[in-house]
Amino acid sequence: MAQKPSIPKGTRDFSPLEVAKRNYIFSTIKSNFERFGFQPIETPSFENSETLMGKYGEEGDRLIFKILNSGDFLAKANDAFLETKDSLKLTAQISEKALRYDLTVPFARYVVQHQNEIEFPFKRYQIQPVWRADKPQKGRFREFYQCDADVVGSNSLWQEVELVQLYDSVFSALGLDGVTIKINNRKILSGIAEVIGAKDKLIDFTVALDKLDKIGEDGVKKEMSEKGISEEAIAKVQPLFHFTGSISEKIEKLSTLLASSEEGIKGVEELRFICENVTALGMDKSVLDLDVTLARGLNYYTGAIFEVSAPKTVSMGSIGGGGRYDDLTGIFGLKNMSGVGISFGLDRIYLVLEELNLFPETVTATSRALFLNFGDAEALYAMRAIGQLRKAGIKVELYPSNAKIGKQFQYADKRGIPYAVIVGAEEIANNEFAVKDLASGEQSKVSLEALKNMLQ
Amino acid sequence: MAQKPSIPKGTRDFSPLEVAKRNYIFSTIKSNFERFGFQPIETPSFENSETLMGKYGEEGDRLIFKILNSGDFLAKANDAFLETKDSLKLTAQISEKALRYDLTVPFARYVVQHQNEIEFPFKRYQIQPVWRADKPQKGRFREFYQCDADVVGSNSLWQEVELVQLYDSVFSALGLDGVTIKINNRKILSGIAEVIGAKDKLIDFTVALDKLDKIGEDGVKKEMSEKGISEEAIAKVQPLFHFTGSISEKIEKLSTLLASSEEGIKGVEELRFICENVTALGMDKSVLDLDVTLARGLNYYTGAIFEVSAPKTVSMGSIGGGGRYDDLTGIFGLKNMSGVGISFGLDRIYLVLEELNLFPETVTATSRALFLNFGDAEALYAMRAIGQLRKAGIKVELYPSNAKIGKQFQYADKRGIPYAVIVGAEEIANNEFAVKDLASGEQSKVSLEALKNMLQ
Repeated sequence: MAQKPSIPKGTRDFSPLEVAKRNYIFSTIKSNFERFGFQPIETPSFENSETLMGKYGEEGDRLIFKILNSGDFLAKANDAFLETKDSLKLTAQISEKALRYDLTVPFARYVVQHQNEIEFPFKRYQIQPVWRADKPQKGRFREFYQCDADVVGSNSLWQEVELVQLYDSVFSALGLDGVTIKINNRKILSGIAEVIGAKDKLIDFTVALDKLDKIGEDGVKKEMSEKGISEEAIAKVQPLFHFTGSISEKIEKLSTLLASSEEGIKGVEELRFICENVTALGMDKSVLDLDVTLARGLNYYTGAIFEVSAPKTVSMGSIGGGGRYDDLTGIFGLKNMSGVGISFGLDRIYLVLEELNLFPETVTATSRALFLNFGDAEALYAMRAIGQLRKAGIKVELYPSNAKIGKQFQYADKRGIPYAVIVGAEEIANNEFAVKDLASGEQSKVSLEALKNMLQ
Repeated sequence: MAQKPSIPKGTRDFSPLEVAKRNYIFSTIKSNFERFGFQPIETPSFENSETLMGKYGEEGDRLIFKILNSGDFLAKANDAFLETKDSLKLTAQISEKALRYDLTVPFARYVVQHQNEIEFPFKRYQIQPVWRADKPQKGRFREFYQCDADVVGSNSLWQEVELVQLYDSVFSALGLDGVTIKINNRKILSGIAEVIGAKDKLIDFTVALDKLDKIGEDGVKKEMSEKGISEEAIAKVQPLFHFTGSISEKIEKLSTLLASSEEGIKGVEELRFICENVTALGMDKSVLDLDVTLARGLNYYTGAIFEVSAPKTVSMGSIGGGGRYDDLTGIFGLKNMSGVGISFGLDRIYLVLEELNLFPETVTATSRALFLNFGDAEALYAMRAIGQLRKAGIKVELYPSNAKIGKQFQYADKRGIPYAVIVGAEEIANNEFAVKDLASGEQSKVSLEALKNMLQ
């Protein structure tokens, strides 16, 4: 019996219209990456397991998709592992490769492997799918694209300035008004923990502070207290709970708060440089905001931290994020390579554009015109014109058989093709084309040249 | 100790230049697909194993990459299979998903699954990677892209005419002169086997005939004889060994040879329609040829068969192929869906363009200009100009730190960036830019507007 076809949970088929919309976002991101001097690389879909395992924590290791070795993979497997059905230990013996889990680790591997061919600083972008064996849920998939731009091999804060501009540039090009680019600095978080005497509780402190939006001031204080942060320390961070004002006012407040922490002051200076230059250069449609509660990926970032929120009219999590990490490639043996990068969340950006109705009408995968088919002689005449139109870059097609005319019109209609071109004996005799605008119903007879102009 | 980084055998990293060249080919193919009315779809990288297994023969099943189930995959495994180390039988119990092996089976699955959303005839294209656990060798990889265009749900031979034109259109756009598009028809091969009384030996007969180029007339005859094809039958196919002349001459010869075979005559008529219309419409830079020895994928195709050879100056296997298959979707329960499609061999096309030096010079992933960095004040001035240039779509970048000037020039040089822009106190005072052409060494002072024109 024939199988009832389906796809694995957490994966998706994309229809022509969905592909066209996704490609619109990809190509906007891509062209902006390139304007900003980023160069594309691509890495294999699967890496050697040892490249990936241990890089994303225990949970990450569990979520990495492993590929079964080919052939008689059990031949060399340890009998004891088989007998005790030890899946974890057997995995390493029957699987040597694993699907990419993110783009950052493969990028670090690439940089180290190709270090002699690369001119540093290396500005690379990468737009490829990644795979995670996460529990699928609304908006979370097992296969999804990441779009990353990173610079490796430069400590210059101009990179951070440019990355903020790059966010602004992409979101403005997509027509998104009022995106907020939130910035913070890991050194400021460390500095705060230091000045309140909770340096050993940096992570607990930051995790709690990060929840301010969700659980409010009292909730955060309660959590800090539960984690053993003293009442005195909590009192000292009181200003952070109502941290308002312009960016420069916030920077001045931080400067005062962190006066006694060398690391904290360093963070403030970095923030000041970035924010002042971004402000001096101006933003298009986005807003920069300093958010001291922003902590994402704390164990990873060492300097600036970025996160992008969709316009307030849309309820959506972050649509992008990134930051600076001082030792990107150390795991693969290349020390002292500072990196900074940002990432775009394709699936969420898609949903935001959909909700705000921001996909241009021209984003469609369909043809401009359908030539109706009245038989082989007429089709040959039509095909001559079609060839000329295609050479001019116009998407046109011939209905493949001389089916009933109603069926052919219906096909154009259902496909969303805007024009039908009718070529019968009369049109051939007069060397012209009858064109019907399928929206208005208007019909006219035109020359090939006029048809070309109409469809272009 | 840090790991020495590497990638799995048969996979590749792509450098910025390689990505740019590959994207040039992809986008040429893609834009032609769209002009011809094909619409993009995408399917997941992995499918349920039952979707793929059994579709490519025993060898194919072996070469499909299987994905290990997540979590405690051994829990439900059969003890007997573990004890006897039966890799083959265990596979089905510990792996439910597998990486895509080609684009045709997922396309068939897509059509059946989404049949109610699709308007037929459905012209779809798909450009995605596939994975095969083949032994890697020169030009054969374990991860590679396929670029397919297929029409499903139409018997019209105009599709075949258009597919020949599509090949011509793509290869002409890539600047490839003298590509040969070889055409044959499965019904002709069946007809020949029938009229020589070797209908039961169709495959042996065709496999032997297919080797004419390699082993010559005597070799083919010897092989046919060894396979039990009678001397009398072999004598009857004698004309095929020296099958020369124009396409219409060849068609007449076939018409005579196959007069007694209904299927054969049907094949001749199909060929005649396709070739006559292709000829009437004209080709750009490619040549159509009728090759009766062409047999590829015999078990699969039922009508036209295509294969594309690179220009004769290059020694390379086929760079594309395809054909008509009468029952594409039957394996998934949707009967009577005729399909016809062609495929482009990206990796080989890349090698051909490289060998013939046909990649345009504009295909590069690098920036048009590097702004040198003399310190933060100068950098800010430069960044204002950079913002304007990027808005105009020009790829430019700032050297991120005020390193020694020699180092900055060297960076531009190694990156292949054609212009350096120098902004010092004097340029700022005069509101101008010193531009150096790094190839000629010529330097001039220009306004921002003139700089924009120069770089565009």
